Amino acid sequence: MKFACPQSELNTHLSLVSRAVSSRPNKPILANILVTADLDTQLVSLVGFDESLGIQTCFSAEVETGGRLTLPAKFLGDIVSRLPAETLTLDEVDEDEVILSYSSGKYTVRGISAAEYPNLPEVEAAGQTAKLAVDVLLEGLKGSLFATSGDETKQVLTGVHLLAEPKILEFAATDGHRLAVVQTQDEQGRADTDAPPLEVTIPAKALRELERILLQSQTAEPVALQFDQTQVVFDLGLQKITTRLLDGQYPNYRQLIPRQFARQVTLDRKQFISSLERIAVLAQQKNNIVKFTLDSANQVLALSVEAQEVGSGREQVPAQITGEDLEIAFNVSYLLEGLKTLPSGEVQLQCNGATSPAVITPLGGLKLTYLVMPVQVRN
Amino acid sequence: MKFACPQSELNTHLSLVSRAVSSRPNKPILANILVTADLDTQLVSLVGFDESLGIQTCFSAEVETGGRLTLPAKFLGDIVSRLPAETLTLDEVDEDEVILSYSSGKYTVRGISAAEYPNLPEVEAAGQTAKLAVDVLLEGLKGSLFATSGDETKQVLTGVHLLAEPKILEFAATDGHRLAVVQTQDEQGRADTDAPPLEVTIPAKALRELERILLQSQTAEPVALQFDQTQVVFDLGLQKITTRLLDGQYPNYRQLIPRQFARQVTLDRKQFISSLERIAVLAQQKNNIVKFTLDSANQVLALSVEAQEVGSGREQVPAQITGEDLEIAFNVSYLLEGLKTLPSGEVQLQCNGATSPAVITPLGGLKLTYLVMPVQVRN
Repeated sequence: MKFACPQSELNTHLSLVSRAVSSRPNKPILANILVTADLDTQLVSLVGFDESLGIQTCFSAEVETGGRLTLPAKFLGDIVSRLPAETLTLDEVDEDEVILSYSSGKYTVRGISAAEYPNLPEVEAAGQTAKLAVDVLLEGLKGSLFATSGDETKQVLTGVHLLAEPKILEFAATDGHRLAVVQTQDEQGRADTDAPPLEVTIPAKALRELERILLQSQTAEPVALQFDQTQVVFDLGLQKITTRLLDGQYPNYRQLIPRQFARQVTLDRKQFISSLERIAVLAQQKNNIVKFTLDSANQVLALSVEAQEVGSGREQVPAQITGEDLEIAFNVSYLLEGLKTLPSGEVQLQCNGATSPAVITPLGGLKLTYLVMPVQVRN
Repeated sequence: MKFACPQSELNTHLSLVSRAVSSRPNKPILANILVTADLDTQLVSLVGFDESLGIQTCFSAEVETGGRLTLPAKFLGDIVSRLPAETLTLDEVDEDEVILSYSSGKYTVRGISAAEYPNLPEVEAAGQTAKLAVDVLLEGLKGSLFATSGDETKQVLTGVHLLAEPKILEFAATDGHRLAVVQTQDEQGRADTDAPPLEVTIPAKALRELERILLQSQTAEPVALQFDQTQVVFDLGLQKITTRLLDGQYPNYRQLIPRQFARQVTLDRKQFISSLERIAVLAQQKNNIVKFTLDSANQVLALSVEAQEVGSGREQVPAQITGEDLEIAFNVSYLLEGLKTLPSGEVQLQCNGATSPAVITPLGGLKLTYLVMPVQVRN
């Protein structure tokens, strides 16, 4: 194997696939990336894989000799990222050993034979396919990923549930305390109404990488999705992301969302966030709990915390309030995380009583439902 | 106590003094800052103190009632930094309790009586004084602070040694492995040749705060220094930094610096740094040791590392070399830390042999000497 390419090209693609390389791999070869140079196509492809998530990318290079070899991801990436912006040469001089050279230096890098590298799992030929528009996908990911559980023991809750019905693509995520549901219109997507509804739960880690790559690539081409019972592949053209699916029944979240509300509060989102962030400083002393007082006579939402040892605080946020006055308490972290992902200038908080779920939605635009359970407090 | 002031003013000065408040103080009151409002001068002063370092600052405010109280540094700072840019009021409504209010909210903050707050140590009336120009002070701090020891058990080595002779101010720092000495010309400073030479060792922590404040304030006024056997005060006009001095004999570092060198290597500093940073990736596998080969015939300095398991690397840096060829090895971290603080475009590396100290100096401008001991390696 021998090829030459610009430093920036090798660097960009190395960092891309390195995100699928575990820092503590189960087998030594999984600390490596698979490099394949193809003489005919003059393309170099790189693969990183952690046995669950696989990232594959390819770029043009001057390939002099084709070949395959795995090389240490971290070491190679650390060197290449520090090299100057000039042409680099990668030359396999010995078995499983390459020399990486540039104008004023060279590095010998030991690899491991490509024969030992595992194949990326493939989707069964009988699997389903779909095409998703990039902006729809990004909207859905941003509005749901933050609400997934970070606790690996929570299985399906560590992923985002994707439900594709004709012309509608729904993203849902919950960690048991709150729930985010984004419903996007996918006009170009699954227009074929005969297709069975797609319903899968995809690990958040893989979707975060997908989001990152989509944001960087700025491609407008729809993303092709192939999946079967255990595996999904996102095909972005030059990049492919493959991941196992999460096993198990996803909670029937739609039934959790109340259909009617007795109270509605409309607020300026940024003002609401600023007030919550200030009162959160005090709430940290009290399990993050903030008391809301809906005052319809004054059209004001008051936020308050009493922390014996340190002090107390009260914030007033102007609001349009309909329905009777109410005292209700929330975990301020859940509110802030949700509010920060909403794209709108104004938001609506809807609820029925102090012990039933409240829902926050953006006004206008995106169809996002953010459900939060209130916290019970003794007076 | 009652006063009003702009949010930005209170926020800036709170963050300044909070840097002297320990996150784990020995006594509860040391988690607080001392706030003093003076009706006559219409000034508010703040003090933070960790029993070694004290920072004092003051600013103008509309003082309605004078008074003194200590308030929790972190809690107050966290709230004030999140308040909008408008006028804030701080009002002592109850004993040891203030209400901090702004247009749409208010916070009750519990404090502790100022009577319990320790007095900042003062310098004896018989102590010495000096005036130091700000640019001279900054030059000296930047060139020495990085070489102090971070190991608290190393006593005097955790500080910078300051030696003021007529018109010369010398900063020295060493952690036992390397030594940085900056000699600055202080024309306006201690012109009075009758004064005894000033010689003190000041904790790096206090000097880092001094450096930060000087960089922020952009004042051109010389800094007044007062000190006795145990304490030093830097007086910056509106701010004062006080710190205990480090006890013990500082090493006689001047005798460590060789007076003559058999070999001289002149290099472009940035090119040298880039090459060292690349080879450092490999050196991390080998106790950070990099081998230097002085090749005078080719006027090249070669840097190389052989790491069995991962690979090997060689960098070539163009250099002007005088003296015979030599192989010598260094800890790459020490070299990089020193080279990064040097202000010049070109640097000179001087040495005698593979086992005696090498010295790096900037070419032109600042008189900085950076001494590094080579590492012995078996071939």
